Amino acid sequence: MRTINIGLFGLGVVGTGLLTILQNNRDLIRARLGAEVRVKRIVTAHPEKPRSVNLAGIPLGTEPAAILADPEIPIVVELIGGTGAAREIVLGALEAGKHVVTANKALLAEHAQEIFGKVYEKGASLGMEAAVAGGIPVLRSLKEGLAADNILEVAGIVNGTCNYILTKMAQEGAQFADVLAEAQQLGYAEADPTFDVEGHDAAHKLAVLVNLAYGTTVPFGAIYREGISGITPMDIEFARLLGYNIKHLAIGKLEDGRVEARVHPTLVPRDHLLASVNGVFNAVFLTGDNVDATMSYGRGAGGLPTGSAVASDVIDIARNVLSGIRGRVPALTVVAEALRDLPVMPIEDISSEYYLRFQVRDRAGVLARITTVMGSHGISIQSMIQPSQADHPDDPVQVILITHRARERDIRRSLSEIGPMDFILGPTQVIRIERVGT
Amino acid sequence: MRTINIGLFGLGVVGTGLLTILQNNRDLIRARLGAEVRVKRIVTAHPEKPRSVNLAGIPLGTEPAAILADPEIPIVVELIGGTGAAREIVLGALEAGKHVVTANKALLAEHAQEIFGKVYEKGASLGMEAAVAGGIPVLRSLKEGLAADNILEVAGIVNGTCNYILTKMAQEGAQFADVLAEAQQLGYAEADPTFDVEGHDAAHKLAVLVNLAYGTTVPFGAIYREGISGITPMDIEFARLLGYNIKHLAIGKLEDGRVEARVHPTLVPRDHLLASVNGVFNAVFLTGDNVDATMSYGRGAGGLPTGSAVASDVIDIARNVLSGIRGRVPALTVVAEALRDLPVMPIEDISSEYYLRFQVRDRAGVLARITTVMGSHGISIQSMIQPSQADHPDDPVQVILITHRARERDIRRSLSEIGPMDFILGPTQVIRIERVGT
Repeated sequence: MRTINIGLFGLGVVGTGLLTILQNNRDLIRARLGAEVRVKRIVTAHPEKPRSVNLAGIPLGTEPAAILADPEIPIVVELIGGTGAAREIVLGALEAGKHVVTANKALLAEHAQEIFGKVYEKGASLGMEAAVAGGIPVLRSLKEGLAADNILEVAGIVNGTCNYILTKMAQEGAQFADVLAEAQQLGYAEADPTFDVEGHDAAHKLAVLVNLAYGTTVPFGAIYREGISGITPMDIEFARLLGYNIKHLAIGKLEDGRVEARVHPTLVPRDHLLASVNGVFNAVFLTGDNVDATMSYGRGAGGLPTGSAVASDVIDIARNVLSGIRGRVPALTVVAEALRDLPVMPIEDISSEYYLRFQVRDRAGVLARITTVMGSHGISIQSMIQPSQADHPDDPVQVILITHRARERDIRRSLSEIGPMDFILGPTQVIRIERVGT
Repeated sequence: MRTINIGLFGLGVVGTGLLTILQNNRDLIRARLGAEVRVKRIVTAHPEKPRSVNLAGIPLGTEPAAILADPEIPIVVELIGGTGAAREIVLGALEAGKHVVTANKALLAEHAQEIFGKVYEKGASLGMEAAVAGGIPVLRSLKEGLAADNILEVAGIVNGTCNYILTKMAQEGAQFADVLAEAQQLGYAEADPTFDVEGHDAAHKLAVLVNLAYGTTVPFGAIYREGISGITPMDIEFARLLGYNIKHLAIGKLEDGRVEARVHPTLVPRDHLLASVNGVFNAVFLTGDNVDATMSYGRGAGGLPTGSAVASDVIDIARNVLSGIRGRVPALTVVAEALRDLPVMPIEDISSEYYLRFQVRDRAGVLARITTVMGSHGISIQSMIQPSQADHPDDPVQVILITHRARERDIRRSLSEIGPMDFILGPTQVIRIERVGT
């Protein structure tokens, strides 16, 4: 039986998960691949650290060259993360004619042109299933399952930390900060949670999704991004009264040659499948012009689920190596000649329905003044609630409007006119509403 | 640019959908594949029939040999259906060294050994994504996405007609027969609905799923099958009171070397994702030992969704043809040497929780007599409701028991003892309860 050697960079949660899978499911992988997958060498910054996984005699070292210069290793697995050493390793491996498997969404998103440029130049394979939605094979569905479809939309819940926090806030009526502290204790949120809760991680994943969906490499900085730290239990409750749950979504579309790519809290109709995706789970809708709406659901993180996605990419590329072929499926879904430079649509140009929560003085005529301004910008209202009256005339009352579909630019103009008015007692909450897949 | 010729058998709903996709998305497919997909010839029983799709000069005929004997056609697409002519065509194409794409679950399920035997013998590729859950790329996820995982369970909603009927019955409190008649008018159910509503179609799809999941070819006749015609609005209402929706599920597992494969109406907890899959939509859970529960959701039928799956298989195989390789991914997920003959577990050996609705005379001591029998077979009860009392002493009242996990054999023995008792006024309704993916 033939052996496919891999070189592994990184022995963190995912690296350990991968080793566990390759050991536990060795017979299974052999039966499916018809060959042995062998980790020939591991490079880690801390080879001396005790590990929870049996290394079974695999040599450990700190020198990348031990893998990158080894002609017997056709596949390099990069599980270090970040855009420093990882970038060097991935580029070095590609330059050396190797294929790469990575879970590194930051690298793929922030250095898309450089990384994919090198992949295309070398005709290499780049496995990145683990970079988006952990163990869920959503990139494979996008690249191969929907190969005959124009992708109308990619949208979903891609950050488990945000989804856990929003789920708990909704179930318990709790404040963001309290649930975050609890999530940190449970290991569902990092000590520095900014990266997750402010939407950076989701934006990285969205960049990968839209780049694959549209055969492009969007500038990462142009992706619009809002986190969940500004969501209050009050918003969750009012959304519920109106028939919605609040979810943190990543949304990508192609409109008139511009990529719409945005990450933000979103009202989702309560009977929509995404509204039922709770806790740390992820779910991604892919909508194609023929297949219509599809959704993939599962665990978005964790050593074994993510390691499973890494292993599936290794097996996929190993099949090519065994057959003696390279770059069977183009890394960005299209052949080099068909790659496009597509701009990202500024957030002001998108259109959406909106949840607007105004904090106003409780007096007559307020609603008329708000809706007059909005009407002057062509925005029409589909519903309004004012859940309670003020106990004291100086206390704010909350007025919630749900708009029909409107341009973000017009919403912003309206709010900049309404903001300074004398009855406004605080900042207005703005949350977009999406009906994904319809 | 190179051209890949395909030969198409059948111009029904799916064949027409495929042609439409290949025409509409020609540029897209060219960009993704780096080659042209051309339908070189179509064989149909009725070449003279007017068509809703532009045939663009593709020659039509009735003679299979025109495709099967054409050395310029490496890929045969079989969209005739059934197990007669389709079987001849698929076997003939494989014998001629061609690859096959088919949506024909009946053929794949009922002639699994013969068809897959030939596929392995010839080292051919067999694309069958369209055979299960229409446009949803669930077979690709099973074969490639979860390539490093032991499949613990495949389970889901795979028949849109059943799901449409059950959804409508639940929403409207309507009778099965009335909703079926409506579904027939809308084209969601066939004039002869037996095949769908009695679970044959779902069993075909389940056979394909378990064969792929476990690298085997189970005897189709051994798959346990119940349809939905016995489900009453009363059962749907009582299930709801107890916190469940009723769905028609196909369920596959591997237990101690035996395949559990069964199709039947099932109580699903109301907060489970499957409970929210409504109308004609399909959804399949794949649970792996590393990835844990994943779900794929989308349209299970229709010319364009199913045609999209066929087209994705054509593209997949075309990549192999362009690279000059054959049989890159084994048709049943494992290489020939690793195929297994696995028996199907008899339904009496499965274990499940159960919903049991007894129709009894309204008098004291009935519940004690029922539960005494069940207790004597080791079955314990987790909840009981008796929603109303009888108006007249001869009218039956409904007593619903939910059991803890029990063996089907013990349930059947209990019911055969209880059935003849003097207080029993009608047949007992038995519906299994599943917590898919947990």
